[in-house]
Amino acid sequence: MGRVTVRRPVRMITADGQRRRPDALAAEEPMELRVGGSSLTVTMRTPGDDVELAHGFLLGEGVISAREDVASARYCAGTDEDGHNTYNVLDVRLAEGVALPVQGLERNFTTTSSCGVCGKAALESVRTTSRYPPAADPLRVSPAVLATLPDKLRAAQKVFAATGGVHAAGLFTADGELLVAREDIGRHNAVDKVLGWALMAERVPARGCVLMVSSRASFELVQKAAMAGVPMLAAVSAPSSLAVELAAEQGITVLGFVRGNHMNVYTHGERVP
Amino acid sequence: MGRVTVRRPVRMITADGQRRRPDALAAEEPMELRVGGSSLTVTMRTPGDDVELAHGFLLGEGVISAREDVASARYCAGTDEDGHNTYNVLDVRLAEGVALPVQGLERNFTTTSSCGVCGKAALESVRTTSRYPPAADPLRVSPAVLATLPDKLRAAQKVFAATGGVHAAGLFTADGELLVAREDIGRHNAVDKVLGWALMAERVPARGCVLMVSSRASFELVQKAAMAGVPMLAAVSAPSSLAVELAAEQGITVLGFVRGNHMNVYTHGERVP
Repeated sequence: MGRVTVRRPVRMITADGQRRRPDALAAEEPMELRVGGSSLTVTMRTPGDDVELAHGFLLGEGVISAREDVASARYCAGTDEDGHNTYNVLDVRLAEGVALPVQGLERNFTTTSSCGVCGKAALESVRTTSRYPPAADPLRVSPAVLATLPDKLRAAQKVFAATGGVHAAGLFTADGELLVAREDIGRHNAVDKVLGWALMAERVPARGCVLMVSSRASFELVQKAAMAGVPMLAAVSAPSSLAVELAAEQGITVLGFVRGNHMNVYTHGERVP
Repeated sequence: MGRVTVRRPVRMITADGQRRRPDALAAEEPMELRVGGSSLTVTMRTPGDDVELAHGFLLGEGVISAREDVASARYCAGTDEDGHNTYNVLDVRLAEGVALPVQGLERNFTTTSSCGVCGKAALESVRTTSRYPPAADPLRVSPAVLATLPDKLRAAQKVFAATGGVHAAGLFTADGELLVAREDIGRHNAVDKVLGWALMAERVPARGCVLMVSSRASFELVQKAAMAGVPMLAAVSAPSSLAVELAAEQGITVLGFVRGNHMNVYTHGERVP
């Protein structure tokens, strides 16, 4: 497809004057995910690794938990107005016995029928659905190893190098070996692509692994880690309050501001001796 | 409410050793938006300015286009398990004659019933729904003024100063005067809060204004600008391909990498003479 970057002319203004040049932009296209023939969601994403994206998304939502839960995943044969396949509609068929996802906007929150949606409800929702709670994972990673992860992730970011405009996520071993890195204009998508890769490679639950993200760590990223059994989430930027609460409860180690030799350990610091 | 930041203990690791100290995290809580008694969406946001957030979200979705389209917006009286009001469910009642939003996940895309969802469909969707196309806006802003915006926005970021973990959006005049700035863990929410403020202040369509964001510029941010009649979007980081396409079509000037004296002009450069 070759659509991960798109070239556009740009006028660059600096203190020294102006010049025109071509610029590479991170590609963004909508992807519709269909499950069992019904539209489940439309996400704006950087094209590529869409099957992994779909697997990771469905894992995070609790629809699937193993590779064999998906019978098939293929692009629909639909075309745009010029007659080209858009490669933007992915049709997933679940294996027999796997329940179709509950449709609707409340999927992450069990208590929206009452009037008290709150952080606790969000935490409870993950507590009841994660099949691979990482609490007992004996992973240990030294600060020296953790300090190497941002550079390794950055080195794998081909689209970022070209555009400066995408997020990345990477899955590492306890020794700091990069297993997989994925990029996307959306940080949730980058994580979905990584965890979908792990699921398809039969590495879920991702015991003994570190998930590193180039962004902040939000509730939803910790939720995805919890659903995939990842015991450690390291972020280049800050975590949110609810991300830290969920991680504390789910037994996930959260690190923030991981930049060179500096890092903050927010939860379950026993894994960073 | 006072929940924009939350204090947590943190272990900070540096090259010089380790120490424990309290850390301020950006607060994250779910907010459920109800319209006409039905749940429309749940968003993870930093509490505060929720009524503006709701107005901005509904403006961006094409549900409302003026302040008087909302009859009332109030927190539900629901409580969490400890009996405290969560202030996390906002109930919006639309004015008589304003159509209820179409429920469902396909709201941004008109063509998902066929099999060819693509960038063009996304562009078309905005084309048909924006009431305030900014194409004819005679706004002109000099690079010298634009160069001052990031610092002004940063100076208004109280939560970022405390946490390093939130996005910001600000609305500026052509002279570089900051009209309003809002922060949120989600960049879409920060923009919704700013544009919701503008709607409530009867400044929509936001002719002659510059919307500045601390993040990248995605399709959805340009879409929100288009729906609010904002003729110029300036981002600290990169725009996506579809953001630039939509801006070119909608007559919006997009600037990226606005950092001090450096900036890239991607579309409608006539407004940056």
